[in-house]
Amino acid sequence: MEEVDHLAHERRTANFDVDAMKVVWAGSRRAFEIADRVGRLVASDPEFRKDNRTSLGRKDLFTNTLRKAAHAWKRINELSLTEEEASMFRFFVDEPAYVDLHWGMFIPAIKGQGTDEQQKKWLSMAYKMQIIGCYAQTELGHGSNVQGLETTSTYDPKSDEFVIHSPTLTSSKWWPGGLGKVSTHAVVYARLITDGKDYGVHGFIVQLRSLDDHSPLPGITIGDIGTKFGNGAYNTMDNGVLRFDHVRIPRDQMLMRLSQVTREGKCIQSDVPRQLVYGTMVFVRQAIVSDASKALSKAVCIAARYSAIRRQFGSQDGGPEIQVLDYKTQQNRLFPLLASAYAFRFVGEWLKWLYRDVTQRLQAGDFATLPEVHACTAGLKSLTTSVTADGIEECRKLCGGHGYLCSSGLPELFAVYVPACTYEGDNIVLLLQVARFLMKTVSQLGSGKKPTGTAAYIGKAEYLLQCRCNVQRAEDWLNPSVILEAFEARALRLAVNCAENISKASNAEEGFTDLSADLLEAAVAHCELIIVSKFIAKVQQEMEGHGVKEQLQALCNIYALSLLHNHLGDFLATSSINSKQAALANEQLRSLYSQVRPNVVALVDAFNYTDHYLSSVLGRYDGNVYPKLYEEAWKDPLNESVIPDGYHEYIRPLLRQQLRVSRL
Amino acid sequence: MEEVDHLAHERRTANFDVDAMKVVWAGSRRAFEIADRVGRLVASDPEFRKDNRTSLGRKDLFTNTLRKAAHAWKRINELSLTEEEASMFRFFVDEPAYVDLHWGMFIPAIKGQGTDEQQKKWLSMAYKMQIIGCYAQTELGHGSNVQGLETTSTYDPKSDEFVIHSPTLTSSKWWPGGLGKVSTHAVVYARLITDGKDYGVHGFIVQLRSLDDHSPLPGITIGDIGTKFGNGAYNTMDNGVLRFDHVRIPRDQMLMRLSQVTREGKCIQSDVPRQLVYGTMVFVRQAIVSDASKALSKAVCIAARYSAIRRQFGSQDGGPEIQVLDYKTQQNRLFPLLASAYAFRFVGEWLKWLYRDVTQRLQAGDFATLPEVHACTAGLKSLTTSVTADGIEECRKLCGGHGYLCSSGLPELFAVYVPACTYEGDNIVLLLQVARFLMKTVSQLGSGKKPTGTAAYIGKAEYLLQCRCNVQRAEDWLNPSVILEAFEARALRLAVNCAENISKASNAEEGFTDLSADLLEAAVAHCELIIVSKFIAKVQQEMEGHGVKEQLQALCNIYALSLLHNHLGDFLATSSINSKQAALANEQLRSLYSQVRPNVVALVDAFNYTDHYLSSVLGRYDGNVYPKLYEEAWKDPLNESVIPDGYHEYIRPLLRQQLRVSRL
Ligand SMILES: Cc1cc2nc3c(=O)[nH]c(=O)nc-3n(C[C@H](O)[C@H](O)[C@H](O)COP(=O)(O)OP(=O)(O)OC[C@H]3O[C@@H](n4cnc5c(N)ncnc54)[C@H](O)[C@@H]3O)c2cc1C
Ligand SMILES: Cc1cc2nc3c(=O)[nH]c(=O)nc-3n(C[C@H](O)[C@H](O)[C@H](O)COP(=O)(O)OP(=O)(O)OC[C@H]3O[C@@H](n4cnc5c(N)ncnc54)[C@H](O)[C@@H]3O)c2cc1C
Ligand SMILES: [Ca+2]
Repeated sequence: MEEVDHLAHERRTANFDVDAMKVVWAGSRRAFEIADRVGRLVASDPEFRKDNRTSLGRKDLFTNTLRKAAHAWKRINELSLTEEEASMFRFFVDEPAYVDLHWGMFIPAIKGQGTDEQQKKWLSMAYKMQIIGCYAQTELGHGSNVQGLETTSTYDPKSDEFVIHSPTLTSSKWWPGGLGKVSTHAVVYARLITDGKDYGVHGFIVQLRSLDDHSPLPGITIGDIGTKFGNGAYNTMDNGVLRFDHVRIPRDQMLMRLSQVTREGKCIQSDVPRQLVYGTMVFVRQAIVSDASKALSKAVCIAARYSAIRRQFGSQDGGPEIQVLDYKTQQNRLFPLLASAYAFRFVGEWLKWLYRDVTQRLQAGDFATLPEVHACTAGLKSLTTSVTADGIEECRKLCGGHGYLCSSGLPELFAVYVPACTYEGDNIVLLLQVARFLMKTVSQLGSGKKPTGTAAYIGKAEYLLQCRCNVQRAEDWLNPSVILEAFEARALRLAVNCAENISKASNAEEGFTDLSADLLEAAVAHCELIIVSKFIAKVQQEMEGHGVKEQLQALCNIYALSLLHNHLGDFLATSSINSKQAALANEQLRSLYSQVRPNVVALVDAFNYTDHYLSSVLGRYDGNVYPKLYEEAWKDPLNESVIPDGYHEYIRPLLRQQLRVSRL
Repeated sequence: MEEVDHLAHERRTANFDVDAMKVVWAGSRRAFEIADRVGRLVASDPEFRKDNRTSLGRKDLFTNTLRKAAHAWKRINELSLTEEEASMFRFFVDEPAYVDLHWGMFIPAIKGQGTDEQQKKWLSMAYKMQIIGCYAQTELGHGSNVQGLETTSTYDPKSDEFVIHSPTLTSSKWWPGGLGKVSTHAVVYARLITDGKDYGVHGFIVQLRSLDDHSPLPGITIGDIGTKFGNGAYNTMDNGVLRFDHVRIPRDQMLMRLSQVTREGKCIQSDVPRQLVYGTMVFVRQAIVSDASKALSKAVCIAARYSAIRRQFGSQDGGPEIQVLDYKTQQNRLFPLLASAYAFRFVGEWLKWLYRDVTQRLQAGDFATLPEVHACTAGLKSLTTSVTADGIEECRKLCGGHGYLCSSGLPELFAVYVPACTYEGDNIVLLLQVARFLMKTVSQLGSGKKPTGTAAYIGKAEYLLQCRCNVQRAEDWLNPSVILEAFEARALRLAVNCAENISKASNAEEGFTDLSADLLEAAVAHCELIIVSKFIAKVQQEMEGHGVKEQLQALCNIYALSLLHNHLGDFLATSSINSKQAALANEQLRSLYSQVRPNVVALVDAFNYTDHYLSSVLGRYDGNVYPKLYEEAWKDPLNESVIPDGYHEYIRPLLRQQLRVSRL
């Protein structure tokens, strides 16, 4: 078989060491090697093929996913993979499934909220998948407002049991992944009621289905909530609905690390600090940011490779047309997304460090940094997922008409990704939390309390309120401290403006509410500053490999200057820069695009994604787009027959003016 | 049956005449009555149900659409609908189908490019649907660059025939709707070659399938190109692939209104001015803008009603929580989209007038306004479709988790809408054409040539380059001439800046290319100015109905001021306004939101959409969301059995640690 590489030329023009960049992207040589090996393992196993996903009906799609999950578990055991490798393996299988919730929510919830005894009992079964668990928090009527959940768990001292009940229609659990058809158990969040008093929402381990025959236990109504966005996408997942009719569970199935209910029905707090649960939250958000960089880089990889293959217009004397990647408008849409993918990767890596740091502090009883860490992780979750969702769709548009075909991989990538903007905290609700933190920090400035970590710049308020950007030539924008100061000034001034306007309101809470649209912008500015500063810090580290640092420097500058352009209103309105300097930033951005252009295909090769993982005809490594698009088309079920079903009933009579329409 | 209206309270707070607004939205009382009647006709016919669309596999989905198309044709004939009513009928059936291309592209192409004789012959069959046609322009390798199409049509004087041929893989026709499985005929665009010379791309009527048994004619390979974005969406359409192997057609099937090939094979131009074809283009774009307002208003209607039902947080003393519609962030995301829907409706209406005006001019041989009209319609197509696509997704996010369910209607609305950004001209390519027009207009300013129509403001360059906005209080922003001048100054100054920067380049073409990202922004500013000015003009007309004008005035101001905020960088960088004035605009915007809030549900009721057309549990007229969401869930195929298929093979063995995975 003849092997062609239609992108060979693009790969030759790169002036940096791609293999070294792969290691930087992965985080370390070891991380690279694991990802590389596990990625190939999955890609080469025909059981994991996913190209047929969009043509399967819901039931076949779902059974197919059950098969893959079982096969993955079998392989993970046969290969004796470590926990890290196993989770990488599931990641490359790349299909939402009940196992995500089992490993990602059920187990961590028990770890975080269960007593040692509870952990020992339940986790040993869960680790072996002798039970399968899900995370049942959201209800039909309440998602964002967890404190408003309506499911009740009433202690019955007579039998030493809790009675779990769904008192209203809106109290039906709704959305939990893995619930609808698979899970045998769930961590159910419900209002703890004992001795006639409501103690608010707590977690309970509830068995849902018989371990003998999988039928729902008495009093439990359970099902799937229906089709979701996209063809495959999240339709491989059994997001479920669940109702309880006075279901009894033993008292020791309440997760009792923080609060306990005694045999007599007294609710008491344990001496474990409640703040400890925040560690889990930082971990989960760190993982979401890391997933954002993966999803965005996948989309960018497809759009970049296809833009190098696609030619349109500008043929001179019968020569080839221009690669659309050479159009400045295409670059101006694509390159900032490429830079964002790298930026999110590095801030995700930094969040891993932050998680370890926070964990140590929490264990040492130091809770001082929690508000800052909470704001930072909430904001980064919100910002990176929003940008990624929009970025995937932009990449699809960058592929013109062909991006609209499922075989491009982009429609399904979008459909499967977008809920990340909603779950684990609605992005707007999260940004409002960041804004609250900012307002509090600003209001405490007078008190001598010094902001730390990602908020440290707020401590420089006096300086940042009066400093002036002294960019005079385009190249001045390459100076990281110039960029940082502009972003700090913008973020600080927006926050201070909001605080001042709030203080003019008759009542601070009302002021906050009225100005919340402005507050979102201040929150975004704060988060973008964090990402810019972490990218700059990364680039300042030592790095191996010819040209690697130079490329990252260019991407870092593209990231910052394109943000500056997109939020020019902020920068100008706060006089953080002037309009002359804005024009110079634009000029510098254009020259950065030219510098990065010959490296673009190599910069997406550095993600080291297999064709299986990309699952895109347009993004193929070898760039052999057209023959494969053509081949792919014929696999559609509609092409099984030349004359379509329905011809005799609905087309022929129409053409012959003899319509008598009957039902399908 | 008890009828509840969970939105009754919202409807009572409206302080304007909804019925009068319905007429304004429809365009006239007559238009309202037709839409209302036809909409109900379709909604009440069970043959047109569409709630099952997302659970059908591709083949069933497609057959189902064939059935509906045939039924629609039968009803249209039975009811003797006029052409206008029939097209309204198809619109409310609301499912992409081959008939869209037959009526929307095939027939207009023959009308526009066929001789009188050709029209007589082909249109009489097409009107009766004795033949079904599609529009086969795009190829695997060329979409935007129509002049680069590779299919050839070579004249053979021996037989007086054209030989249609696909010389390369990339010359395969690819994308035409209705082609894959249904069309009997196509207008095929191919390079006309006669006497060894290539005369560029022309249109040819080609029969594709036998009228006897529907099988493809000899030399023709034809099929569907595969699954597209979304579940139902465009998968009801047989976008197709088509290859020709030396297929012969009679000479008189070349569309010969503009160019002719004689019996001897000479290619000659007719005396019909080529500009005449532009009339069709204006018509098509006018329809696209009108569709944008329909799609956006549909999404806004769903999000607005659900936001009034959805409550989250802020319950005081056990009372109801806050409607999410009352959150300022929700308003700041939703209300500008509501305003945009109205804005696009009115600019679409104006485009209808423009079409009539252009047609008259063309017939009178007056081609002077064509470049301006071309730029205006290209820009409006681009802007309104981009905003609508993004706006639908924003509306989905506004619905939180439940927006991700297909039963919300929003995922499918997005998937079916987004290709509008790509077909009929890629939006970026179109904006670059607008930019070219702007640069040309600016460069001719010195020559005394006075710009007209939507470009007339450019003639005021001298004034607009030095005028200063004199807003001093928030209310000053309610003055339409203040708004207009700010938008004119911004658009003009951006264009002039670009022109100046281009003139500094060594070569104008290179300058244009290098600055194309800036040029896009100038083009957008031009288009937004057009929409703002047409909205203002609309509001200045006389209008019947209590409070109607006031509401539209508020929406018009919301539209303009939210644009101003979103593009603040433009306005400040060009000193069209200053940052104090920007803050005042924001203040005014907030008070407009409060003014519109009690009217929002009534403002979406004014679209007069049936629940059938909306096809959204969240957007139901009666607001009875939760019971219906719950009901809907159980219809999913996965809920046909309590124990899922695959339990015995893939779940039970896993739980029992006895995995031996076999294939599905
Ligand atoms: C694919 C998917 C998987 C999921 N998996 C799980 C799971 O496994 N387990 C589970 O328990 N849940 C799960 N969920 C549910 C998810 O966590 C919730 O949907 C999410 O928390 C958002 O809550 P909501 O749907 O109530 O949104 P809402 O809060 O109803 O949001 C609606 C709108 O109101 C706005 N809004 C709400 N509150 C405020 C406020 N205070 N201020 C301003 N605006 C506000 C929001 O911004 C949004 O625009 C899943 C959801 C999805 C889509
Ligand atoms: C649902 C659907 C239905 C369709 N129906 C039909 C039909 O019935 N009949 C038919 O003939 N066709 C049809 N088409 C095809 C459609 O008209 C083309 O896809 C469209 O014209 C875009 O062209 P393209 O795909 O070649 O995009 P490309 O031109 O390849 O675009 C790829 C990228 O290059 C960029 N680009 C291209 N040229 C330039 C430039 N000069 N400067 C800067 N950037 C540039 C674009 O902005 C885009 O980002 C359909 C397409 C879709 C998706
Ligand atoms: Ca499907």
